[in-house]
Amino acid sequence: MSARLTLHEDPRSGNCYKIRLTAALLGLPLERRFYDIMAGETRTPEFLARVNGNGRIPVLEIAEPAGLRFLPEGNAACWYLAEGSALIPATRFERADMLRWMFFEQYNHEPNVATLRFWLAFVGERNLSDQQRAQIPAKRVAGEAALALMDEHLATRDWFVGAAPTLADIALYAYTHVAEGGGFRLGDYPAIGRWLARMAALPGYVAMDS
Amino acid sequence: MSARLTLHEDPRSGNCYKIRLTAALLGLPLERRFYDIMAGETRTPEFLARVNGNGRIPVLEIAEPAGLRFLPEGNAACWYLAEGSALIPATRFERADMLRWMFFEQYNHEPNVATLRFWLAFVGERNLSDQQRAQIPAKRVAGEAALALMDEHLATRDWFVGAAPTLADIALYAYTHVAEGGGFRLGDYPAIGRWLARMAALPGYVAMDS
Repeated sequence: MSARLTLHEDPRSGNCYKIRLTAALLGLPLERRFYDIMAGETRTPEFLARVNGNGRIPVLEIAEPAGLRFLPEGNAACWYLAEGSALIPATRFERADMLRWMFFEQYNHEPNVATLRFWLAFVGERNLSDQQRAQIPAKRVAGEAALALMDEHLATRDWFVGAAPTLADIALYAYTHVAEGGGFRLGDYPAIGRWLARMAALPGYVAMDS
Repeated sequence: MSARLTLHEDPRSGNCYKIRLTAALLGLPLERRFYDIMAGETRTPEFLARVNGNGRIPVLEIAEPAGLRFLPEGNAACWYLAEGSALIPATRFERADMLRWMFFEQYNHEPNVATLRFWLAFVGERNLSDQQRAQIPAKRVAGEAALALMDEHLATRDWFVGAAPTLADIALYAYTHVAEGGGFRLGDYPAIGRWLARMAALPGYVAMDS
């Protein structure tokens, strides 16, 4: 990787942490630029015009001799970093199956497990709108269903796809390992617990708060 | 592609249509097996055990001499079909940028644009729960924001990534071209309108209701 990489991030965000963990496992240096999403720092006119019109982090900034490019969406940035490495499987079906779990993560897991953590551990339940508060039970059920599906899958294998860790594990690890902040009980999911320990033991692993 | 492919689908679903459109543009034959999601046909014990433990369609069934495999998540199935074709860009950054729009589609677009279409055009507003009805305004705002971002992006280019159609266009086309069923006014987005016409003119194109 000849490009100079800068991560635009809020360190409390699991979507940002995915990219840091991918880079760390690959031994890629990553500069960091911090934003406070709760203070609206990713909604400023400059951020919207220059970094991401969607007003969200993470964004991976890629500086190459040919110019500067910005890549939003954590899972896409992980793909960019990991192409050609063992974190992306070598067979066509397994590559697609890895993406399957990454899309599952963004659709079924993140809006429930991560949103409840954000609401309960950072915003605070008493500061939620009535409409947000009304969504808690449905997000609880959907988040538990996502964790149950993961636990069932991991009951008979060490990693989500194939015989080694891939981006699917990294994407799902980011918000699963801090799910208790959203009121989920990880002790209910023993196969997830064993998988979390395998992840934390990977060479090069970095913690979310490091 | 030597595998025999079967799409487990509900033809009203844009997530299923993405796969059909990808296969059609690539000239790949696809068998179809129909389910009625509103009748719970993807939540039966047999479906959950054999096809997808997540209880959702689409699922791409891939029959190879080595065995039978099931691939959930529409965008992952599109990737599987398109690997090695011009529907996936040839450069590392553009591949990741294509995935960026596909993750955007599942996170920012589908839960708003597609869910409102499902609720208003299929379930019917009077049959919604109070909690669903309370979410309509927020989903309207978020869906309009997703469409506005797409329209801004397309104002200066023909396709989402690079100079030719990719899976990013297919993924975003599926629910955008029927967004009026969810009460969105496509006339408000002229660049999207021109892009929709380019998509429908692609050689091999198939309509959602065909």
